[in-house]
Amino acid sequence: MSAKSSVIVDLRFHPEQVREGLKNAFPGREVINRADPASRDKDLSAAHYAVLWKPLDDLFLRATNLQVLFSGGAGVDHILTLPGLPTLPLVRFVDPSLTTRMSEWVVMQCLLHLRQYVTYERQRAKKLWAPLTQPEAAELTVGIMGMGVLGSDAARKLKVMGFDVIGWSKSKKSIDGVETFEGAELDAFLGKTDILVGLLPLTDETRGIFNYQLFSKLRRGGPLGAPFFINAGRGGSQVEADVITALEKSVLRGASLDVFETEPLPSTSPLWTMDNVLMTPHSAADSDVRALFDHVERQIERHEAGQPLEHLVSRDAGY
Amino acid sequence: MSAKSSVIVDLRFHPEQVREGLKNAFPGREVINRADPASRDKDLSAAHYAVLWKPLDDLFLRATNLQVLFSGGAGVDHILTLPGLPTLPLVRFVDPSLTTRMSEWVVMQCLLHLRQYVTYERQRAKKLWAPLTQPEAAELTVGIMGMGVLGSDAARKLKVMGFDVIGWSKSKKSIDGVETFEGAELDAFLGKTDILVGLLPLTDETRGIFNYQLFSKLRRGGPLGAPFFINAGRGGSQVEADVITALEKSVLRGASLDVFETEPLPSTSPLWTMDNVLMTPHSAADSDVRALFDHVERQIERHEAGQPLEHLVSRDAGY
Repeated sequence: MSAKSSVIVDLRFHPEQVREGLKNAFPGREVINRADPASRDKDLSAAHYAVLWKPLDDLFLRATNLQVLFSGGAGVDHILTLPGLPTLPLVRFVDPSLTTRMSEWVVMQCLLHLRQYVTYERQRAKKLWAPLTQPEAAELTVGIMGMGVLGSDAARKLKVMGFDVIGWSKSKKSIDGVETFEGAELDAFLGKTDILVGLLPLTDETRGIFNYQLFSKLRRGGPLGAPFFINAGRGGSQVEADVITALEKSVLRGASLDVFETEPLPSTSPLWTMDNVLMTPHSAADSDVRALFDHVERQIERHEAGQPLEHLVSRDAGY
Repeated sequence: MSAKSSVIVDLRFHPEQVREGLKNAFPGREVINRADPASRDKDLSAAHYAVLWKPLDDLFLRATNLQVLFSGGAGVDHILTLPGLPTLPLVRFVDPSLTTRMSEWVVMQCLLHLRQYVTYERQRAKKLWAPLTQPEAAELTVGIMGMGVLGSDAARKLKVMGFDVIGWSKSKKSIDGVETFEGAELDAFLGKTDILVGLLPLTDETRGIFNYQLFSKLRRGGPLGAPFFINAGRGGSQVEADVITALEKSVLRGASLDVFETEPLPSTSPLWTMDNVLMTPHSAADSDVRALFDHVERQIERHEAGQPLEHLVSRDAGY
């Protein structure tokens, strides 16, 4: 039996965690971690596999015998736009850990808006003790755009918390207890939505989809007055200037953003200091690197055993 | 058939909601709303029922023919300590709406601590973009003290979100998928707990139970370092000076408080401005007055039909 092919790891996040996670990963294989300066000049021509998150520029010039590409996260837009991308199978990262983390973040943000967190913080700053009239979760409809693995799990957990939940996706999905809408039914979906949750991949169709016009179609006059916008998909799907205008004009009552048009968010962005915006630095569903490497190893084993790869990305759809 | 007996409503909260909620409540009965100045001097001697939350001083002197007392909330300590309290059946408020609201608040607070909200807010104030190493819910144990209706519902929902959940109560409870501890096993329970949730009634045994000594027994060295304290039961169960000291000495990493020794919380309390404390003004599980009046009407009907009352309070246990 020939030696197992080596794996290139080219991830622009959490370098210590990656180094630590690689200690027990990919048994029997050489691993070339491109975040390690000592590995920068290594010969990449023998490697069949590459795990990528915003890789270095010279990757495809030097790794000329790749067979399968793996995304280091749930999204793949950062790979599909790489110059010189070879026509190879591309596998997304799907993992219970990533899904769980995303739902933690989404449910937390929906609860914060339901429970009028921003209003209570404003009162607290004035040392004002004033319980607010409080609808319960069932009185609000959370509308999720993007009903893949992440959207479906968030929907199920939001329902357990009591929210009314509806979903929109490009093609119709069927999910127990969730009213679903497809492509052309977007306006009907928006008209029922009090809290909009974006979990969309970034494609030509979703770029800039969260704009002022869309926000103005959300339901108004619900128990909390104006609607809320939550985005944990991709920053490229939102027009940030429109988010800010909608918040200033009370077209939106509040927003929760984990993703931004430019990341890290420039210090000049007004979003840093707007008190009706909750934000995190693209950390809603951080990839657990141990889980990522386990997932890649499983798919490599399938590939080498002649079985089909799972979680393949469609180049046409862009996700 | 004789006229239905009248009902005294003596609630020191949300006067407009009470007035509105009474419009369609208790059909066929006279309702004396003591929050209404025009009703203050009404004869109370014919009323058999009273719905109470911190009632006016003269209630039991003037309402001399009461048969059943109803608490306006889940807790009854505010009634059991009333001077001149007659020896009558006392019914607590149990309602799916109140339970749902409490679980919304508890799950939200647990998620905020899990997801290191306070640390992210400190970074945001400095416009610092810095994703943190993030454990997932399964790596943290939420320990709930008080496993009645509210504690059990919170436990179930926290488990759906992925947390490990354990429970402590005076007498042993059995709940699917939740390791439970009783009275004397408190230290073992605390030693496993990363996020402590207080949902205890206020009794002689629970007064001041959340003190520095108890906080020092919580698990240390979990994935988030020091433990967290969440209280939505009663303020009298916590020694606020100890909560503050424990936070200052990093015996606690953070706290979420909905209840306080003195309410409204005095403006001199340091809790108002401590950035590792999240707080709400005793609004975690506001009683929905419509649901409260429906519940009272159901119990009155049972009582008048000769059926036993439900949700009766034990004077001995104090809850």
